[in-house]
Amino acid sequence: MDITSKNDVIQGPGYGKVTTGPIVGSCKKWSSPPGRPDIRVPYREIALDPSANEEPVRVYDTSGPYTESDADIDVNLGLPMPRAKWLEKRGYARVTPREVLPADNGFATEGQAVAACPAPHDVYSGAGATLVTQYEFARAGIITEEMIYIAHRENACRAEMVQGAEERRADGEDFGAEIPAFITPEFVRDEVARGRAVIPANINHPELEPVVIGRNFLVKVNANIGNSAVTSSAAEEVEKLVWSIRWGADTVMDLSTGRNIHNIRDWIMRNSPVPIGTVPLYQALEKVNGVPEKLTWEIFRDTLIEQAEQGVDYFTIHAGVRLQHVPLTAKRTTGIVSRGGSIMASWCLAHHRESFLYDHFEDICDIMRQYDVTFSLGDGLRPGSIADANDAAQFAELETLGELTKIAWAKGCQVMIEGPGHVPMHKIKVNMTKQLAECGEAPFYTLGPLTTDIAPGYDHITSGIGAAMIGWFGTAMLCYVTPKEHLGLPDRADVKVGVITYRIAAHAADLAKGHPAAQLWDDAISRARFEFRWQDQFNLALDPDTARSFHDETLPKEAHKTAHFCSMCGPKFCSMKISHDIRKEAERKDGMVQMSETFQEHGARLYVPQEEVVSAAK
Amino acid sequence: MDITSKNDVIQGPGYGKVTTGPIVGSCKKWSSPPGRPDIRVPYREIALDPSANEEPVRVYDTSGPYTESDADIDVNLGLPMPRAKWLEKRGYARVTPREVLPADNGFATEGQAVAACPAPHDVYSGAGATLVTQYEFARAGIITEEMIYIAHRENACRAEMVQGAEERRADGEDFGAEIPAFITPEFVRDEVARGRAVIPANINHPELEPVVIGRNFLVKVNANIGNSAVTSSAAEEVEKLVWSIRWGADTVMDLSTGRNIHNIRDWIMRNSPVPIGTVPLYQALEKVNGVPEKLTWEIFRDTLIEQAEQGVDYFTIHAGVRLQHVPLTAKRTTGIVSRGGSIMASWCLAHHRESFLYDHFEDICDIMRQYDVTFSLGDGLRPGSIADANDAAQFAELETLGELTKIAWAKGCQVMIEGPGHVPMHKIKVNMTKQLAECGEAPFYTLGPLTTDIAPGYDHITSGIGAAMIGWFGTAMLCYVTPKEHLGLPDRADVKVGVITYRIAAHAADLAKGHPAAQLWDDAISRARFEFRWQDQFNLALDPDTARSFHDETLPKEAHKTAHFCSMCGPKFCSMKISHDIRKEAERKDGMVQMSETFQEHGARLYVPQEEVVSAAK
Repeated sequence: MDITSKNDVIQGPGYGKVTTGPIVGSCKKWSSPPGRPDIRVPYREIALDPSANEEPVRVYDTSGPYTESDADIDVNLGLPMPRAKWLEKRGYARVTPREVLPADNGFATEGQAVAACPAPHDVYSGAGATLVTQYEFARAGIITEEMIYIAHRENACRAEMVQGAEERRADGEDFGAEIPAFITPEFVRDEVARGRAVIPANINHPELEPVVIGRNFLVKVNANIGNSAVTSSAAEEVEKLVWSIRWGADTVMDLSTGRNIHNIRDWIMRNSPVPIGTVPLYQALEKVNGVPEKLTWEIFRDTLIEQAEQGVDYFTIHAGVRLQHVPLTAKRTTGIVSRGGSIMASWCLAHHRESFLYDHFEDICDIMRQYDVTFSLGDGLRPGSIADANDAAQFAELETLGELTKIAWAKGCQVMIEGPGHVPMHKIKVNMTKQLAECGEAPFYTLGPLTTDIAPGYDHITSGIGAAMIGWFGTAMLCYVTPKEHLGLPDRADVKVGVITYRIAAHAADLAKGHPAAQLWDDAISRARFEFRWQDQFNLALDPDTARSFHDETLPKEAHKTAHFCSMCGPKFCSMKISHDIRKEAERKDGMVQMSETFQEHGARLYVPQEEVVSAAK
Repeated sequence: MDITSKNDVIQGPGYGKVTTGPIVGSCKKWSSPPGRPDIRVPYREIALDPSANEEPVRVYDTSGPYTESDADIDVNLGLPMPRAKWLEKRGYARVTPREVLPADNGFATEGQAVAACPAPHDVYSGAGATLVTQYEFARAGIITEEMIYIAHRENACRAEMVQGAEERRADGEDFGAEIPAFITPEFVRDEVARGRAVIPANINHPELEPVVIGRNFLVKVNANIGNSAVTSSAAEEVEKLVWSIRWGADTVMDLSTGRNIHNIRDWIMRNSPVPIGTVPLYQALEKVNGVPEKLTWEIFRDTLIEQAEQGVDYFTIHAGVRLQHVPLTAKRTTGIVSRGGSIMASWCLAHHRESFLYDHFEDICDIMRQYDVTFSLGDGLRPGSIADANDAAQFAELETLGELTKIAWAKGCQVMIEGPGHVPMHKIKVNMTKQLAECGEAPFYTLGPLTTDIAPGYDHITSGIGAAMIGWFGTAMLCYVTPKEHLGLPDRADVKVGVITYRIAAHAADLAKGHPAAQLWDDAISRARFEFRWQDQFNLALDPDTARSFHDETLPKEAHKTAHFCSMCGPKFCSMKISHDIRKEAERKDGMVQMSETFQEHGARLYVPQEEVVSAAK
């Protein structure tokens, strides 16, 4: 599985050693929405063999400037800032950022320290402004540039409605979602205003290429990254981000702990074109040397501001873990498996007090609104085993999250809700139904779920099954699981397999929902397959490098890339080749349909009717 | 992914170089049904750490004698014959086998020839006998030894009903299946008599350890193997079988083509403890040099007898591809993708005649009944792309398969039905519903289905999603797909990944159906996880070698196998460790439930009710 594309060369000056260059067979392009030449939306274009006589295939592109053909990346300088001029117009106050303290970097000493990222970064605050969050703009009836960008992006930059879109929508089963044939900026605004979609976009993250998360849009995928125990350079951490988005992660969560956590996050933010999420509780815990009961609201509050100023786009906040929920986990098979959940439960029990996150929830809202940091309300009590799925603790927390969602909306914040976990297939649907009902249709963001516990080493698959299903039912974003889940730290190959598996799940969900354009991709690759356009088949694959290398293991010669057969059946047995022969033969014979009708009219009655047979068999 | 267990040594004399020895951490054992000490049913036992204070875990074992701890395998001698004495009593006529012709081995010349398998093999025919097939015995109210064996095997050799079985059944969703808490031989008989289950068990396959395929039993998995272009030894081919069943394939299809096909099949049969399936059409086509229109009923008939005498347990017969169906494929995106289907369609068109398989279906039944070869009615018109799913061609064929099922039953044969293919998630359910209705609840045996076309290189995953779902809906056996699907020939690593992926799908389906014992395995591994019994977690994994090696990549030391944390979060952040602390703390505090009640009674009203907030947010 350790396959890298020809362009996976590590390039760039200084610290800038990250993977750059296009995915093999693809080309990054840009398109502007009608009347807005100033807004440039990226997409990935896959050109087909001239023999196909088909338009190139356009697919959604998460990878940022790194996949430009002449990518000139220097992580010291950070990425271009497509949002800078939009934000400028909104007139937020430029503020003096909070001073970085030794605790912010885990008291890293001279020898251990990762330097601060030198990329320029002015800090703004929306305090006092009437409209800061995308939710506030949306409710005020204002369409932001982010919304225009997103509409064009979701349409794969098409100016016109996709042909046959209505038929494909009707053909799907969307469980009450309302996916339009064509996404307009007004539709995006309306969905955000209704709380049914979020646009995680901190006003201090101008480098962002905006993304929408909601069940009436394409299903999104999140990948988790985090620092290693020994970090040799900041570029290594940036590379984890770059590698994840190269293969299709729509957002990335930085779950780093320990030393240099502040500075590493800065490197990631300044070099990320996708929304970055964090769990501020992890850093807060570092500041009290990892002892949960020493956590205080003041330390947590300060951490929120620290990270919001850096530009983090969404925070996981485990405010649904209340003191009264903790005893509900007592008889569980696997207790509390969320780190955040267990930290807060521990705090509640130690102090025998209500969680400070719950008690200060309105204060948290006020801070997050100031920077437009989106809530990702954490499921600290998610089940960690099949045995604990959908239990009282899990659903009690979900009800609390519903309560908190409404408070956050009232405070002007954007909200999504995190979901399980380990859930057998037949118990997945009710998670979605209950989440929609309890949380007023706020977007659901789930981890898997894993549909069995018995396959450590393959949990990208056990969870990919659940992810595809819950995505179909309405989950807006799927948090990936790698093959190393439960066992160890994912390496580069694991991250790629995890992202690709979840892109499969997300796309399978889009197809099943009847997304108006999803099947165009499947149809293009299937035509390429049927017409023996091998190069097109590889290039259209989610992972062209692996597809090509698997083919080449058996048939390495260049000539085989145009062969009208493959290694599975060989030339004599190729069903597709025979299919072509059949088609030609049939065309010769004066039209197939006619032939069929003739046959059916004159066909002999070869067998007795079913009912006679059934009675004979009894 | 190229991980082999410590016991994966290639052992044995002469040709006998196949993988032997137990799966790490497991031990093969046997158990006899009550009152039948002569019947020995294997199972795999996973012993747990003494600290667990738990019974060992018993799991279903497909692997045959190869995983015995003192396995003494010589493929020249073939396997022991557990069925020999059962078959002997039934008094079938020992016959002189059909003479092996040069065409049977693809005209292999001296230098190319694989020698015939020297293992002893008497050939029997049930011609004339009143009762030959398991279906005939079942309908006559007779419980065969195979049925007794299977009942004990499905219960994981438990003499008593599993505690809590009724609750677990009630907790599942089985879509009308009728899975009992405990499987009795009479239940097996009744299911077979109703045509709802099959026991593929050729009377010429005495080496078989009987297996049942039906939706009221554990979901089964099939793996496909086939000869390579250059075969160095018969042991290599046997090893493919042994490797597949080691990881959990319940049946194996030998899809070999070309030279030595007869002799290789003989080696496989004599060394297979699982049912072997074939597609006789492939060999028939070889006999006419790969030209479909030269096929004749006589050649096909002769091939059926040839393979039935060898002991093949089930035949894929593409009798549902009728002349009138062929034009229905004309407008498909990917035409006909089944080899058998395209061969027959080609024949029909070339001769402009009805398929000889359809015309001679009753003759085929007569032959297959004589040896109790089970029908696997092939879906020659299965969709090869999302675009073609559930189309007129596919469903027309399914209706014909329903018609043929009743004929086969009337002739005393066992029948299962093959299914698609490529199907998006929302179109999977109707495949199952329609199959049950059209085919009188005969067992469904599906390939995947693949839920998207865009991920060649990962089609074990695109199809594992569909397989888990259709298994839940009622499919009795899932045909695996490897990562090489559409691209090349699977190697050893691919076969393992394919089998494990499909074991995941089958088990996830069993869980969701509410199988009374399935969750015991999940619960055991989850308890091991929560209690930091790392060795138990690895040993209980579907693939212990991979689980252990993934863990060791980050924490290789032996001491880490008893550590109360793992590499993902480290000791400070371990949620499970904190959970244990919480549990202890709560127990100290005079009972958790009591505490919870107290809190709820006196809890402050921290927030306004939801309805007030919602109206405020509007």
